[in-house]
Amino acid sequence: MRIFSSLLGMAMLLAANPSHAQSGYDSVVIRRISDEILRNGRAYENLRVLCKQVGRRLSGSPGAEKAVQETARMLLEAGADTVFMQPCMVPRWVRGAKEEAYLTLAGGKRQQLRVVALGNSVGSPREGVRGEIVEVHDFAELERLGRPGIEGRIVFFNHPMDPTLVQTFRAYGQAGTYRSNGPSQAAKYGAVGVIIRSLASNADDHPHTGAMRYNDSFPKLPAVAISTRDAEMLSGQIRKGAVRNIWFRSNAQMLEDVPSFNVVGELRGTEFPNEVITVGGHLDSWDLAEGAHDDGSGCVQSIEVIRVMKALGIRPKRTIRAVMFMNEENGLRGGLAYADAAKKDAGRKYIFALESDAGGFTPRGFGVSATPEQFRKVASWAPLFHPYGAADIVAGGGGADIGPLRNLGTALAGFVPDSQRYFDIHHAESDVFEAVSPRELHLGAVVMSAMIYLVSTYGL
Amino acid sequence: MRIFSSLLGMAMLLAANPSHAQSGYDSVVIRRISDEILRNGRAYENLRVLCKQVGRRLSGSPGAEKAVQETARMLLEAGADTVFMQPCMVPRWVRGAKEEAYLTLAGGKRQQLRVVALGNSVGSPREGVRGEIVEVHDFAELERLGRPGIEGRIVFFNHPMDPTLVQTFRAYGQAGTYRSNGPSQAAKYGAVGVIIRSLASNADDHPHTGAMRYNDSFPKLPAVAISTRDAEMLSGQIRKGAVRNIWFRSNAQMLEDVPSFNVVGELRGTEFPNEVITVGGHLDSWDLAEGAHDDGSGCVQSIEVIRVMKALGIRPKRTIRAVMFMNEENGLRGGLAYADAAKKDAGRKYIFALESDAGGFTPRGFGVSATPEQFRKVASWAPLFHPYGAADIVAGGGGADIGPLRNLGTALAGFVPDSQRYFDIHHAESDVFEAVSPRELHLGAVVMSAMIYLVSTYGL
Repeated sequence: MRIFSSLLGMAMLLAANPSHAQSGYDSVVIRRISDEILRNGRAYENLRVLCKQVGRRLSGSPGAEKAVQETARMLLEAGADTVFMQPCMVPRWVRGAKEEAYLTLAGGKRQQLRVVALGNSVGSPREGVRGEIVEVHDFAELERLGRPGIEGRIVFFNHPMDPTLVQTFRAYGQAGTYRSNGPSQAAKYGAVGVIIRSLASNADDHPHTGAMRYNDSFPKLPAVAISTRDAEMLSGQIRKGAVRNIWFRSNAQMLEDVPSFNVVGELRGTEFPNEVITVGGHLDSWDLAEGAHDDGSGCVQSIEVIRVMKALGIRPKRTIRAVMFMNEENGLRGGLAYADAAKKDAGRKYIFALESDAGGFTPRGFGVSATPEQFRKVASWAPLFHPYGAADIVAGGGGADIGPLRNLGTALAGFVPDSQRYFDIHHAESDVFEAVSPRELHLGAVVMSAMIYLVSTYGL
Repeated sequence: MRIFSSLLGMAMLLAANPSHAQSGYDSVVIRRISDEILRNGRAYENLRVLCKQVGRRLSGSPGAEKAVQETARMLLEAGADTVFMQPCMVPRWVRGAKEEAYLTLAGGKRQQLRVVALGNSVGSPREGVRGEIVEVHDFAELERLGRPGIEGRIVFFNHPMDPTLVQTFRAYGQAGTYRSNGPSQAAKYGAVGVIIRSLASNADDHPHTGAMRYNDSFPKLPAVAISTRDAEMLSGQIRKGAVRNIWFRSNAQMLEDVPSFNVVGELRGTEFPNEVITVGGHLDSWDLAEGAHDDGSGCVQSIEVIRVMKALGIRPKRTIRAVMFMNEENGLRGGLAYADAAKKDAGRKYIFALESDAGGFTPRGFGVSATPEQFRKVASWAPLFHPYGAADIVAGGGGADIGPLRNLGTALAGFVPDSQRYFDIHHAESDVFEAVSPRELHLGAVVMSAMIYLVSTYGL
């Protein structure tokens, strides 16, 4: 309190020249934000609740429902003026009983293999699926083999993430197509099942799931992932001619859509309440994981933006909304519903949206998709982020959930943390609370709060 | 191989203008260095050996001796021209039997407490030491209490690391004096023992050790650390008046010095072999820890600098030495011996030394202590480090082991990784191999190799 009343004093002194972003005043406010979060931040404790008390929360599951209730409570506790649920229908994909798989080796021996069904995939027939295994490294190789090489067989897509790409999201983007499109591409040539190497940046024993989508022109094949170590093992066995065939059973199925919600907490702007600034993460996680980094972190950081404003008595000029989006992982229905509601929200302008969905790691900066003029304005704030290691403000960025707002002319930004560890645990059971560093998580909340503070003060 | 012959072609093209640092050529070489390390780096596997096969390696211990042998082998395997041991005498401090401690509560009940002796401290009398406990937060408070408040009692220094400092090393620097100097300051006023709150940035149950030093003007008190959680608990109990007294026993002692070694691996320069560039970390660790981040990482990264040069066929113009310094933790004898040998090494000039001793985390940049002209030269290379996230080249920095070279006019640099997680595990049993991310470790080796490549090419 004492701290902020002196800030108010400074505010009045500087009121004559309100365009002074990067003035001493802004850097002092941001320092207060940082001190408050690093000393008294609630994000880490909220994340513990989301991971350990709620846990797995795939869209349509009881966990997702519980996460809606818990984050609504957190937003109220953080001091949001208004907290509301925004309805949306979500797909309900269920894994069913645990998958099973084994190799039959050339000598007839069986070797168990740990597999997990890809999100949105269909299950195998009840008796499982069996076939010779064909390893391919990319779609070009698949095409060369064509129907003669593929028909009746199980295709093993073994495309590693490129370790030489320093930005791991680039490697993920490149390899991701084999998870998303591999099953239908293999079906095109008559395959009976698909196994993919997990999209993971490390060597370990966790299979990583993630969404795939079927091309309706081809049969829907059951599709599973194996760990990177098992992919290396399997590739070695195939090279030696040691594998006779492979069998797996997946019990996944897509059920009817069910109702769910985004959760929105609002701090009403004092001067321009009809200019809306969105900050969010997604509430759903894969069913294998606590979803600590993906994306519990983004949710609790967004709640922290509200909390720190209230704790410091900062009254934003523009309306700030912390949004917990539902169903990023396998449908994006929450993001679509939010943009749809925004479109119908006559008289309010959604000027800016920031998403944190790259993990709760040490901040490096922001990626911004906006007009050149807006970009220049945001980039001019870089020196204010330098003390927090987050001065890399680059063109291009956003987030899946806020993406649909782009059609409304909203400027978008993605929070960019360090990316080295993210794909070690992404979509795997190792994405747990213990993998999050409290200081890294809170520093991310600091720079997100600073960005929201600046946009709420100066507009865009 | 094919890759490097094309680089040689480029080298010849560019040979007419060898001062072109930051030319495309250098960025291509650095990209090759990065690709090689991110694809085939040995640092992580070497670290596994140092942590899991060698393990704890305090100076003078069998572990330290084994670490000398193992890293000498690693340097040979990496392709060093010459590997040699540089002798130095080191202190041999031993913890002895596990420490014991308990509180006697006001009601007479005993509550066990986990304590670890501070490095270099003396043990308690065989029967332990008992006294009322006096909590102080800083030296000013200790002075105010003076002899009447302290005599015959056990002083509990409860000075947390300041969580608001984004650079955790600054917080460590501030709080560190209570570990280093607290015991003698308390002895000055007649205390009988000292307990310190661990220098740790998180809330957990691990006590962190670390060096202290006695002021010979005062009695040598036994001194132990407790975990940050226990410090909070103890402080709460004291505030409630619930603690009657505390008892602890430490069995530590300082033995006679014993012989040990630095390990040096050299790649002889092709054009200026008498200009020596040093890159190193320290081989010793505390006896509680595997010393994965502190400083196994710095050692294996320095070995990687040699390995990547050999693997890519880069023949440095100036001599490069990877040095595993002994005894950074509790004596610095290795660093002193290295500087002493350098001083006597007539005809060779030690132009530059780089130390990695801040953990194997994602790189951010370098701190450089040099002449203004040298600093400008190094800072002009910042754009070459930008693709690897390590473009923060700031004035001031180095490392404890290379510090003594400053008297010879050597320019010094410290590798600066992200600092958020370091003090969670520093000097505690949680500083284990599993706490190191292979990509973060290897990216550090990339930027260290790039810096050494640039200095070896352009001099300083």
